Amino acid sequence: MVGSLGPNSRKHKVTVVGSGNWGTAIAKIVAENAANSNGIFEEKVEMWVYEEKIEIPETSPHYDASSPLCQGEQNLTDVINKLNENIKYLPGVRLPTNLHANPSLEDAVKDSTILVFNLPHQFILRICDQLKGKILPYARGISCIKGVDVNENGIHLFSETIGKRLGIYCGALSGANIANEVAQEKWSETSIAYDPPHLDSKCPTPHRSPNSSTVDIVEFEHKDTSGQISDVKLQPVPNEYPPVDHALLKRLFHRPYFHASVVNDVAGVSLGGALKNIVALAAGWVDGMGWGDNAKAAVMRVGLLEMVKFGEKFFGATIENRTFTEESAGVADLITSCSGGRNFRCARLSIERNLPVEEIEKTELNGQKLQGTLTAIEVNRFLSKQGLENEFPLFTAVYQILQGKMSVADIPHHLEC
Amino acid sequence: MVGSLGPNSRKHKVTVVGSGNWGTAIAKIVAENAANSNGIFEEKVEMWVYEEKIEIPETSPHYDASSPLCQGEQNLTDVINKLNENIKYLPGVRLPTNLHANPSLEDAVKDSTILVFNLPHQFILRICDQLKGKILPYARGISCIKGVDVNENGIHLFSETIGKRLGIYCGALSGANIANEVAQEKWSETSIAYDPPHLDSKCPTPHRSPNSSTVDIVEFEHKDTSGQISDVKLQPVPNEYPPVDHALLKRLFHRPYFHASVVNDVAGVSLGGALKNIVALAAGWVDGMGWGDNAKAAVMRVGLLEMVKFGEKFFGATIENRTFTEESAGVADLITSCSGGRNFRCARLSIERNLPVEEIEKTELNGQKLQGTLTAIEVNRFLSKQGLENEFPLFTAVYQILQGKMSVADIPHHLEC
Ligand SMILES: NC(=O)c1ccc[n+]([C@@H]2O[C@H](COP(=O)([O-])OP(=O)(O)OC[C@H]3O[C@@H](n4cnc5c(N)ncnc54)[C@H](O)[C@@H]3O)[C@@H](O)[C@H]2O)c1
Ligand SMILES: NC(=O)c1ccc[n+]([C@@H]2O[C@H](COP(=O)([O-])OP(=O)(O)OC[C@H]3O[C@@H](n4cnc5c(N)ncnc54)[C@H](O)[C@@H]3O)[C@@H](O)[C@H]2O)c1
Repeated sequence: MVGSLGPNSRKHKVTVVGSGNWGTAIAKIVAENAANSNGIFEEKVEMWVYEEKIEIPETSPHYDASSPLCQGEQNLTDVINKLNENIKYLPGVRLPTNLHANPSLEDAVKDSTILVFNLPHQFILRICDQLKGKILPYARGISCIKGVDVNENGIHLFSETIGKRLGIYCGALSGANIANEVAQEKWSETSIAYDPPHLDSKCPTPHRSPNSSTVDIVEFEHKDTSGQISDVKLQPVPNEYPPVDHALLKRLFHRPYFHASVVNDVAGVSLGGALKNIVALAAGWVDGMGWGDNAKAAVMRVGLLEMVKFGEKFFGATIENRTFTEESAGVADLITSCSGGRNFRCARLSIERNLPVEEIEKTELNGQKLQGTLTAIEVNRFLSKQGLENEFPLFTAVYQILQGKMSVADIPHHLEC
Repeated sequence: MVGSLGPNSRKHKVTVVGSGNWGTAIAKIVAENAANSNGIFEEKVEMWVYEEKIEIPETSPHYDASSPLCQGEQNLTDVINKLNENIKYLPGVRLPTNLHANPSLEDAVKDSTILVFNLPHQFILRICDQLKGKILPYARGISCIKGVDVNENGIHLFSETIGKRLGIYCGALSGANIANEVAQEKWSETSIAYDPPHLDSKCPTPHRSPNSSTVDIVEFEHKDTSGQISDVKLQPVPNEYPPVDHALLKRLFHRPYFHASVVNDVAGVSLGGALKNIVALAAGWVDGMGWGDNAKAAVMRVGLLEMVKFGEKFFGATIENRTFTEESAGVADLITSCSGGRNFRCARLSIERNLPVEEIEKTELNGQKLQGTLTAIEVNRFLSKQGLENEFPLFTAVYQILQGKMSVADIPHHLEC
C-alpha cells in the first residue's frame, strides 16, 4: 500500500501566482473557500508576490510610529502577512488570515496541485520559465489573465501558452469583474472554463473535436484529446486527491458575492475578454455622437455577433456560441465594458472633444494603454492577411476609424446589409 | 386570361392601422420605401387615423393667423395631410407626401394587401372587429404592438390574436426602438418575424413543428402548417403580386437609419419585448443599490437566460434561442431598457428614495402605468399556477420584491446556484 493512499486522502494545495489588484482579490476568494472546504483544499493558500519594498505612509490607517513595520522600507510580503492587507495593490481590503504572501516563487508552488495564474500578461512567459521543473507534473492551472494574444500570425490563448510551457493543463477564468468591486464583495459573476483531455479514455468527446480552423496561418496551440499538449504528455492527477473537475473549481472560486459558472469552452471564455474591447470603442463613439441608447445597443449587438463569428471561424468546433451570448465572460463583460469601461469612456471623449482616441489616451490614462485600440489593430492585421475584413464590418470600421480612414458618422452605412 | 394577370403585374398596397407616436414613425418609413420601390408597392401609403379634433396653438411653428387651418378646431387628418406632419403624436417630423392620413378605417384598408398594425394594444380587438369582412381575404399583416398578452391562463401573441380575428396571417415587428428617435432618423435596428404556413406544400418545415408546450393550461393560438389558423383557412396571396416574403418585408421596413433583420421566430420576437421589462426593474434596483456595472450586467445576463428558458419551455420548438441572444428584439432591446427605460428608472428611483415602485410610478409617470410591474405580476401568476416559480428565480424575485416579500439586497443570494 506504500505510495498509494486511498482516494481523496490528500488535500489540494492552492497557489495564486501573482498579487496585483486582481491577483489579490482572487487570492482572497480562494482563501475564503479553502478555509472552509471540508477537507478538499489545504487551509493555507499561498500567494506568490513579486517582492518590492514599500513604506507605510503616515497618512495610512495602519501607520503607528511605534511599530517596527513603520520604521522605513519593508518587504511587501511582510506587510501583507502582518497586516492581512495588500496595502499597495488592494488597499483597504482585509485578507483572510490563511492567505500567505510568499516572495519565493519556488517555495510558493511547491507541492501545489492547483495553480492560479494572475499577472499582467507581459510577465507570464518569464514566470513560466522560472516555474519549469519546480511544479508538480500533475498540477492543474487556471489563468485569470484577461483576453488573448492576437497577432497577424495567429491567436494564442494565455491558458494554452501557460499549459504548453509548463506541460500541464490550464483552464481560464474571465467575466464581468472589476478587482476592487469583487474585493469589496459587491456582487458579480464570472465564467470558468476547464476542459482537460480525458486521460483515461482514448475516445474524443464531441465538443472537443480538434479545432477545425479554416485558415492556415492560424497556429492554435490546441491540445488534442489524448492528453498530449504539443510534445508534452499530460499526467493524470493521482487519485489520492479529489478529482479536479467543474464541481471542485466551483467550490474553489464561487462565493455568495462572486457567482461562478463552470463551462468547457476555454477559447470562448478567453476570446470574449479581448474582442469586447473593440466593441466598447464603437459603443463609445456612437454614444459620443448622441445617437441614443438604441444606436448604442445596435452597435453592441452587431459586435456580439462578430465575436460569435470570429470564434466560429477561427476556433471551429471547439467554441460554443452560447459562451459569447450567455456567459458572464461574453455578453455580461461586453455590457459592462460598454457602460463605463476605459475604452468606452475614451472613445466617447474623443467625439466630445473632437480629438483622436490616442490623444485622449495620453491625457486621460496616465501612461496606460487602451486595450481596445491594440486589439483592434492586431485583429485587423490578422483578418486582412486572410482577406476577411469584409466579413467583420464592425471590427473593420473600428480599425478604419482609428486610422482616420473612416468617420464615425459612416458606421450605420458601413454595417448596412 | 381574365382574372389571372401575369406574375407581379400588381403592386402591393400598404396601410398602416394606427397613427400614434410609433404608428406615425413606422408610416413614415413605409412611405419612404414605397415612394421608391421599383413597382413593388403602390406609391401612396394609407395611414388610418383615429379622428380627433385639434387646434393649432399660437405657439406652433405652423401657426399662421390667416390660414384656414388655424381657425378653430380641425380634423387631425386634415392637419396631417395639409402640413405633412402629425403635430399631435409626432410633432416636428416631416412626413413623406405620399403618406395619406385617412379617418375611415374601411376606406384605408380597401384593397390593401399589407396591413401594418400599430396601436396601443387595448384598441386592437375592437379595430379587428371593425375590420372583419372589410379587408382582402389574402392580405398579410405585421403587428408592431410590443410585447405579448400574458395572463394566468396562457400567453397570447398580439400577432396571432390579430391573425385569428381577421383570418389572415400576421407577423411581428419589435426591436430596440424609440419612436421619436427613429422618426428623427437616429440609427437603430429592428427585428421582423414572419413565418406564414406554406400554403403550397403539406410538409411542415422543421422549425415550425407544432408547439410542444408541456403545460396544459397554456392555450397558444398557434397556426399549424397547413394554412389553417384556428378555423379559418388562409388564402394564398395571388401570384399577380410579388410574393410576400422576407426580402419584400425588408424592402418595406429597412432604411439606412433603421436596419431591419427578418427572421421566422414570431414568438421569440414578441416575447422579448414583454419579458425585458421584468429584467429592467431588477437592473434598476441593482443600480440603485450602487452595486456597480458588473452587478447590473449580472442581473441582465441572468434575465436574458430566463427569457430564453421561458421561450423554450412554453413555446417549445417554435422558438429559437438566438432570437433572444442575438436579435434586436432580444438582447438589444433588453440593453436599452436597462439603460434608461422607464421601468429601469422608476426601479432605481425607488431605491434612491426608499419608496415602493408604485409610489414612484404615481409621482413620475403622469398617470401612465409601468409595463414591467404588470408583466411581472402576470408572468408570476402564470408560473405559480404551474408550480414553476423556482425555475425562474429572477422573475420570481422581481415579483416578490414588488409584493414587499423580499428585499433587493437578497437578489444575489436568491440567484445563487
Ligand atoms: N484589475 C482588474 O480589475 C482585473 C479584472 C479582471 C481581469 N484582470 C486581469 O488580471 C491580470 C492582472 O491584472 P491586475 O489588475 O491584477 O494587474 P496589476 O497591475 O494590479 O498587477 C501588477 C502586478 O504585477 C507585479 N509585477 C510588477 N513587476 C513584475 C515583474 N517584473 N515580474 C512579475 N510581476 C511583476 C506586481 O507585483 C503586481 O503584483 C491581467 O491579466 C488583467 O487582464 C484584471
Ligand atoms: N412609442 C414608442 O416608442 C414605441 C416603440 C416601439 C413599440 N411601440 C408600440 O407601438 C404601439 C403603439 O404605441 P404608440 O407609442 O404609438 O402609442 P400612442 O400612445 O402614441 O398612440 C395613441 C394612438 O391611439 C389612438 N387612439 C386613441 N383612442 C383610440 C381609440 N378609442 N381607438 C383607437 N385608437 C385610439 C390615437 O389616435 C393615437 O393614434 C404600442 O403597442 C407600443 O407597445 C411603441
